[in-house]
Amino acid sequence: MSKLLIVGTVAFDKIETPFGKTDKILGGAATFIGLSASQFDVESGIVSVVGDDFPQGYLDMLKGKNIDTTGVEIVKGGKTFFWSGKYHNDMNTRDTLVTELNTLADFNPIVPENFKDTEFLMLGNLHPAVQMSVIKQIPNRPKLVVLDTMNFWMDNAWDDLIEVIKKVDVITINDEEARQLSGEYSLVKAAQKISKMGPKYVVIKKGEHGALLFHEENIFFAPALPLEEVFDPTGAGDTFAGGFIGYLAQTKDISFENMKNAIIYGSNMASFSVEKFGTRRMEELTKDEIKKRLGQFKELTQFEIELN
Amino acid sequence: MSKLLIVGTVAFDKIETPFGKTDKILGGAATFIGLSASQFDVESGIVSVVGDDFPQGYLDMLKGKNIDTTGVEIVKGGKTFFWSGKYHNDMNTRDTLVTELNTLADFNPIVPENFKDTEFLMLGNLHPAVQMSVIKQIPNRPKLVVLDTMNFWMDNAWDDLIEVIKKVDVITINDEEARQLSGEYSLVKAAQKISKMGPKYVVIKKGEHGALLFHEENIFFAPALPLEEVFDPTGAGDTFAGGFIGYLAQTKDISFENMKNAIIYGSNMASFSVEKFGTRRMEELTKDEIKKRLGQFKELTQFEIELN
Repeated sequence: MSKLLIVGTVAFDKIETPFGKTDKILGGAATFIGLSASQFDVESGIVSVVGDDFPQGYLDMLKGKNIDTTGVEIVKGGKTFFWSGKYHNDMNTRDTLVTELNTLADFNPIVPENFKDTEFLMLGNLHPAVQMSVIKQIPNRPKLVVLDTMNFWMDNAWDDLIEVIKKVDVITINDEEARQLSGEYSLVKAAQKISKMGPKYVVIKKGEHGALLFHEENIFFAPALPLEEVFDPTGAGDTFAGGFIGYLAQTKDISFENMKNAIIYGSNMASFSVEKFGTRRMEELTKDEIKKRLGQFKELTQFEIELN
Repeated sequence: MSKLLIVGTVAFDKIETPFGKTDKILGGAATFIGLSASQFDVESGIVSVVGDDFPQGYLDMLKGKNIDTTGVEIVKGGKTFFWSGKYHNDMNTRDTLVTELNTLADFNPIVPENFKDTEFLMLGNLHPAVQMSVIKQIPNRPKLVVLDTMNFWMDNAWDDLIEVIKKVDVITINDEEARQLSGEYSLVKAAQKISKMGPKYVVIKKGEHGALLFHEENIFFAPALPLEEVFDPTGAGDTFAGGFIGYLAQTKDISFENMKNAIIYGSNMASFSVEKFGTRRMEELTKDEIKKRLGQFKELTQFEIELN
């Protein structure tokens, strides 16, 4: 079984959508990535940091999904990273109400000994210097390194971001971020430019409009599953990334052809994540449900035209 | 060979995009639909109206594509419908600068005798009362009636629109229009509601984000081909509709499975239309180019995951 190391936030989220609002609930990039990847046959571990206000029950739940939490540092007297946001009626835009970095502010990630030989490395959205620190702790380069980032780091840590982007195989960002990073409006041109910065594979996430995978002259597209309701989009991008790298780690095949399948799986997993608040849907998700939904993705996209 | 009757505008367009501007050039819904459908083995004809300012050369070009223009009335002393618009930098939004209805203002469509037995009827974007008049002139209901419309008629001719929507098999509208027509934000719910108004098949066009086909519980999605540059989006929706109905008319198969292929062809044709100003690209388009691009659509969307 392949090892998969996931670096990212483990956090409290407080979310308001047109459908309702939550108290502080479990959130964070590494949480969503880990829960999504846990649906695949991989040996996964998380590197992150929380305060001692973080409920042991959450860590137990993650362990129950066979996620190694040895790398989740618990800072005594510290408080866990907290994010609060409110979604607008279209569910595509949101306002951030609160961001308290807390223990994340001076997070010094430590890769556990048993993950220093990880074959798959997922760098969830975090300060690019933290992402780089993790790369440097792994003596033999992993088979595949995937980086997720966001516009905040483009605005505030450009040089660090460019350095870490040089080191990765795959970058996943949304369409607006791809435009900002490349200075190109056309996503085709944006992906070409970003690819020249380092990553041979560029995944552009377009939310409800699906995701594009670019590699050299090749393009593949995975739609989002059209849903009657999107209940809470929080973590959908991380869930997508977790499904993507989880599938690749399970199949140990990092070819472009297999990455097509991986972004379909990413989209599959994300389609569940948005159905309930927070991590709730991902916690209860079964392999049978995923398989059934894969059938829906086939119905949605596969066609038979004879080229004659 | 199936007959295909197309009703819609034949017009002058004047277009400005970030890439340049045109003088008055050939435009109109029926023009784009006709040129797109002319790539398929169909016997097509247009019902429309122009003034005597309309160049004979344009009509000759359409005839040269085997499009019957007997039904294009030329009003002596009249002026042809004229639209002018300017696209913003994102190419997704535009301002209408000029709309001169001219001869279109009191257009009374006459279906030519040789198309009264048409098997396929495409009602391009026009006043819904004009669309209804055409339906009524056809004694035996066509095998398939497709309606395209827009928000303007929802705002200004709601009752007439609802009446004509009852009579058609397929409606093609964009995402915002689907929301306006149904009062539902979710496109899945919007399509369900619209289907109850009459059309068993609902096609929602999302521009650069592709198109969705809904029928009962089934959904199919055709992406737009990611392009380095979109040069001029004018007529892309009509070109899409022309490819859709042209393929169905050629294959004489109106099953849901075949409509999947038809929206892939619609998206294929639209991907060419946007590559040059106005109708230019569609006038020069060859069957070999379409076939090659169909291969690109397969590369873009088809995947092989074993469900085990």
